[in-house]
Amino acid sequence: MTAATAEAPPRQGQRLTAVADLKQPGISEGDNAMIVVMQAGSQESHIDAVLERLGEHGLRGHLVRGEERTVIGVVGAAIPATLKEELEHFVGVKETVRITQPYKLVSRELRPQDTVVDVRGAKVGGGSLVVIAGPCSVESEEQIMASARAVREAGATMLRGGAFKPRSSPYTFRGMGEHGLQLLAQAREETGLPIVTEVMTPNDVDLVARYADVLQIGARNMQNYQLLEEVGRTGLPVLLKRGLSATIEEWLLSAEYVMAQGNPNVILCERGIRTFETATRNTMDLNAVAVAKRRTHLPVIADPSHGTGKWYLVPPLALASIASGADGIIIEVHPDPDRAKSDGGQSLNPENFAALMPRLAAVAAAVGRSA
Amino acid sequence: MTAATAEAPPRQGQRLTAVADLKQPGISEGDNAMIVVMQAGSQESHIDAVLERLGEHGLRGHLVRGEERTVIGVVGAAIPATLKEELEHFVGVKETVRITQPYKLVSRELRPQDTVVDVRGAKVGGGSLVVIAGPCSVESEEQIMASARAVREAGATMLRGGAFKPRSSPYTFRGMGEHGLQLLAQAREETGLPIVTEVMTPNDVDLVARYADVLQIGARNMQNYQLLEEVGRTGLPVLLKRGLSATIEEWLLSAEYVMAQGNPNVILCERGIRTFETATRNTMDLNAVAVAKRRTHLPVIADPSHGTGKWYLVPPLALASIASGADGIIIEVHPDPDRAKSDGGQSLNPENFAALMPRLAAVAAAVGRSA
Amino acid sequence: MTAATAEAPPRQGQRLTAVADLKQPGISEGDNAMIVVMQAGSQESHIDAVLERLGEHGLRGHLVRGEERTVIGVVGAAIPATLKEELEHFVGVKETVRITQPYKLVSRELRPQDTVVDVRGAKVGGGSLVVIAGPCSVESEEQIMASARAVREAGATMLRGGAFKPRSSPYTFRGMGEHGLQLLAQAREETGLPIVTEVMTPNDVDLVARYADVLQIGARNMQNYQLLEEVGRTGLPVLLKRGLSATIEEWLLSAEYVMAQGNPNVILCERGIRTFETATRNTMDLNAVAVAKRRTHLPVIADPSHGTGKWYLVPPLALASIASGADGIIIEVHPDPDRAKSDGGQSLNPENFAALMPRLAAVAAAVGRSA
Amino acid sequence: MTAATAEAPPRQGQRLTAVADLKQPGISEGDNAMIVVMQAGSQESHIDAVLERLGEHGLRGHLVRGEERTVIGVVGAAIPATLKEELEHFVGVKETVRITQPYKLVSRELRPQDTVVDVRGAKVGGGSLVVIAGPCSVESEEQIMASARAVREAGATMLRGGAFKPRSSPYTFRGMGEHGLQLLAQAREETGLPIVTEVMTPNDVDLVARYADVLQIGARNMQNYQLLEEVGRTGLPVLLKRGLSATIEEWLLSAEYVMAQGNPNVILCERGIRTFETATRNTMDLNAVAVAKRRTHLPVIADPSHGTGKWYLVPPLALASIASGADGIIIEVHPDPDRAKSDGGQSLNPENFAALMPRLAAVAAAVGRSA
Repeated sequence: MTAATAEAPPRQGQRLTAVADLKQPGISEGDNAMIVVMQAGSQESHIDAVLERLGEHGLRGHLVRGEERTVIGVVGAAIPATLKEELEHFVGVKETVRITQPYKLVSRELRPQDTVVDVRGAKVGGGSLVVIAGPCSVESEEQIMASARAVREAGATMLRGGAFKPRSSPYTFRGMGEHGLQLLAQAREETGLPIVTEVMTPNDVDLVARYADVLQIGARNMQNYQLLEEVGRTGLPVLLKRGLSATIEEWLLSAEYVMAQGNPNVILCERGIRTFETATRNTMDLNAVAVAKRRTHLPVIADPSHGTGKWYLVPPLALASIASGADGIIIEVHPDPDRAKSDGGQSLNPENFAALMPRLAAVAAAVGRSA
Repeated sequence: MTAATAEAPPRQGQRLTAVADLKQPGISEGDNAMIVVMQAGSQESHIDAVLERLGEHGLRGHLVRGEERTVIGVVGAAIPATLKEELEHFVGVKETVRITQPYKLVSRELRPQDTVVDVRGAKVGGGSLVVIAGPCSVESEEQIMASARAVREAGATMLRGGAFKPRSSPYTFRGMGEHGLQLLAQAREETGLPIVTEVMTPNDVDLVARYADVLQIGARNMQNYQLLEEVGRTGLPVLLKRGLSATIEEWLLSAEYVMAQGNPNVILCERGIRTFETATRNTMDLNAVAVAKRRTHLPVIADPSHGTGKWYLVPPLALASIASGADGIIIEVHPDPDRAKSDGGQSLNPENFAALMPRLAAVAAAVGRSA
Repeated sequence: MTAATAEAPPRQGQRLTAVADLKQPGISEGDNAMIVVMQAGSQESHIDAVLERLGEHGLRGHLVRGEERTVIGVVGAAIPATLKEELEHFVGVKETVRITQPYKLVSRELRPQDTVVDVRGAKVGGGSLVVIAGPCSVESEEQIMASARAVREAGATMLRGGAFKPRSSPYTFRGMGEHGLQLLAQAREETGLPIVTEVMTPNDVDLVARYADVLQIGARNMQNYQLLEEVGRTGLPVLLKRGLSATIEEWLLSAEYVMAQGNPNVILCERGIRTFETATRNTMDLNAVAVAKRRTHLPVIADPSHGTGKWYLVPPLALASIASGADGIIIEVHPDPDRAKSDGGQSLNPENFAALMPRLAAVAAAVGRSA
Repeated sequence: MTAATAEAPPRQGQRLTAVADLKQPGISEGDNAMIVVMQAGSQESHIDAVLERLGEHGLRGHLVRGEERTVIGVVGAAIPATLKEELEHFVGVKETVRITQPYKLVSRELRPQDTVVDVRGAKVGGGSLVVIAGPCSVESEEQIMASARAVREAGATMLRGGAFKPRSSPYTFRGMGEHGLQLLAQAREETGLPIVTEVMTPNDVDLVARYADVLQIGARNMQNYQLLEEVGRTGLPVLLKRGLSATIEEWLLSAEYVMAQGNPNVILCERGIRTFETATRNTMDLNAVAVAKRRTHLPVIADPSHGTGKWYLVPPLALASIASGADGIIIEVHPDPDRAKSDGGQSLNPENFAALMPRLAAVAAAVGRSA
């Protein structure tokens, strides 16, 4: 796919499947392109109207004429984002097609080599295996300390735990707030594990940033743009969950919001999408892990707890996530899942988590990545 | 949108919203088009390889060059259906885009005026309102005769009823078979209503065609191609339900299968698609009615019984279907829904059906169509 | 379904389809219920463990024993929201099922009669037809004044226009901010139309509330809970759009967040959901309008501009929305859609909007509602 | 979860995650259960009507009374499949809930130990790793022989190849028919690989069964019930692909159709579902692999070629499939994908396939299964 020195046109025989082979050194950001397809039998005056409008934007249209249909191509870095919509409804226009991705900073075309996010010395991306574990919510000192010790002992890289919880119903437990953050800091103090915790609203960013090592943006907030910009401004690592029904492109555009504030430390997280299937809470989309690894240089992790919603499905999907190319997983572990205030049904207990860890390492090794 | 005499380029002021205005007299089937977008920085040898392959197919590529990226346009009637896939994986190719629809006979571009399907004198399409009503399944002589009389009395145009039923489970009632067809014929005899009934497998087509006035293809069989071709060969009117997760394009392609056998009598039927929403059995997609009316000349009806799955949602959605432009509806009516062998929960009883009919006529009149 | 005086058990013959007939006077909020299904062959000790846990919550389980399987029923107002998850993973438990809706204040069981939201004298809900129209974004004084005059002249009830715009990409137009709000106020001054405008983040609520008559919560923010509570506290009417992939239940729970702040003035808005279909921007879910009208007393409107994404599909779907029972529509109208900074492709021009208004009134009259 | 000898109620500490631990020896097929939830404030006469109807079916309802709401439980093997719908619309009934799965023969509750399907000595299920590989379609003697040799050499277990192809458009290549079957048999002759090939219509079953070792049912035909019964009657192994939008329950019910004909040799195949995501052809649902392995004793394989639609995503998803618990994969391999008549874009070339095989074996070993 790259072959900077190849002379003869290579075909599939030369295709390589490792991500490393997809890197294209020396490729700059590149142009955008748009195609305007005229209707069969459209008139010259219709074509002229399109060309004229392109001219108003400083662009030049190139005509490709068939026997009955004409297509107008436009190539250039300066195509406005709205031009597609603008031309779509001109008389005589059948369709317009925008070709290139609307994101830049997150693109592997711009930066071929993997970004490695450093979290207090732990590396996310670039070949290592990261395991972030802990309870859905911080519920008490006893609970979070027990969780932290258990996941530390089993070999986790970081501790997760929510102090602010988004809940569909206003009548359910919504987290301990700042006191929860203090307990997380205390757990870090004792175990040395960096902490990952969610921030839900721009006003809380400063507060949460005083405690957290990684700021988590939840699925429901993936398109909360003010929040994305606010966490972007902190410069702290950001764990960006994919929205429930967000396309991969939208997910990368949300990462672009964070990076556009000058913060390169974004970790993408696939956590299941909403589909017609009701046997599981969500549908884990591991295609998306592989696609994201190819399109962007950012690290990608997976959340099999939310991706499945059932504790007994977490181990097989955690293993599958690593095999699909994820740089790590984030996983819910609770010392007593049956009594958890939230997400108990999808949390592993410490024994099952400890049993999973060597299996994760074995799969990581099998796909050539260090545990 | 066409304005064969307009000189100045018309803009949105000239847009008209009635379907009639979308007709474009004198437009032939037209060309297809495809676009090959090269990667930024792709080499001349890569471009040459694409051009060479196009040449093998007798096609000529037109280059549109930007500063860093090149796009290749192809226009012509003879683009093979698989060319997009073929070129997509050439080295140096970023993306290929096929522009034009893969169907022909069903397209309004080919035939601007509405097709009107004649069913024993009843007209489907072209401005009238058709109401097809009756039970999900034929269960007994008494039940089908009672149904037929009730819907006839309320003003229905045709009688529906299944003799062969597709059921998810092998352990549920699957229809009365040929005896059910005989009972339908008897009901037609008495009431004069044409009958619509499903055929599920190619081997049954001859049998069902001996009794039915309209052959129904169920949602699960929308892509049962042998069956489509078999009903196509009968020349009888075919009611083609949209598949549970079929795109509008796939639905029209299935209609193309029937028409390709020389049978122009296809009635499309939107009956709800599968989405994440679980409050209703399916999600009625009335966008699809409006899109189909625009893209094809074939009549389009809607099935609010399957589209909602709840009897109390049938009336509002039946009214909405007509308002969205449907040429009619097909609706489940049972003399005693609580004791129906299938679909009782989504069937209207005769009283509620009779109450609905004048409301349908009122909405049809409000949107300019004869009841 | 109500029949407070009926003695004999009524069956479907008594079913009535008008929403009015669904009202059940004198019904209080009612209990919740939960069912715990044990596995076939589960042991007595497993059953005891469930009963014991129920006892810890002050609940009593009722056993229903079959030959091989036992089911435990729980009925009571005080069932904790998390009990389902808690019990789901007990040994010997096959499944738990929560029966009743988790929302209260929005429920028609609690309040049978329609809520009518008063917006400067305009009534939303209760039988009238509301039309909110205007551009996607406020772009300039000239543009918003032209829009306001045009929609006023055609008979719109309120003016819409965005000053703060959520956009997938950080590189596109994001609204004029407070200056946009001032222009909206100026348009209200001249035309007398109340204004509807979006607020995107809690910090902006005070600012937007100084100008707006109705605070709009966009689809992407349907589960931005801090924002919901903040707009709840203002007491102003809130137009709550359904999220792209939100279930009807989640949508109503978000309305519950607003109402739980003491603000009863919530207007629900269906605006299309995300499905597999790509021919339209979204899939308009008119089932959801009918379901919401049945489950809640709040007014429900529909947005065919976002629901379809194509201007030429807006008229049929606007008509269908009213026929399905919506209390009104919100619709994008721009004086020059081809040059709109956002959503031009789905905006009507003033001529097409003016042509639509009498057709809306005709359908409203046909379904028994005043225009 | 079973613990036949445990006395104290075990909690999550005893949970085990390996499939083997889910087996429950001695559990018979068990009862079904249904719950009828009355509305708050429903009358005694309404309750009596439900009890009376249950009595007509020979069932007894058990009342669970709360302060304001009553719930009726029914447990028994003989609950008719339609009873849920039947009662749902009784006056005073709020909701009915069916608890237990409608399938029997495929259920792991009925048969705890893994089914192993024997295909000419190759074992599918029970811990081994099966790799079925070959082109989408048989195109020529040269192509299928080259394919067979290549996949044989790389270590594949069986050869796939279509002689009858379902295609969305009537204008594309639809397979070589019986001549294709003869070429497959010739390839088996030379390489010893058993052959897997699709049958599309009941009339072709006898023909295809004369050549094939495994009869494949494609995704579009998952609910073609006559076809399912016909392949059931052959007794040959059946590879049953999950439908594009089929729930896991529907997929298992289709397997039930085959087994109900006395044919226990069913191999389930997850091949991607249709979702809103357009970056990939389908969304591979590996949750479904893990769920199916838990619910049924049948072997489950995965098809990453159709599940992703892009050759470069096949290797990571093939590895992920095995890690998620699949018993094997089916994968498209073509000697010259760029010139394939169908599915070229998702086919691996022989080099990439050969490179994948040892990686699959490594992951299989890592998750404790023999390559």
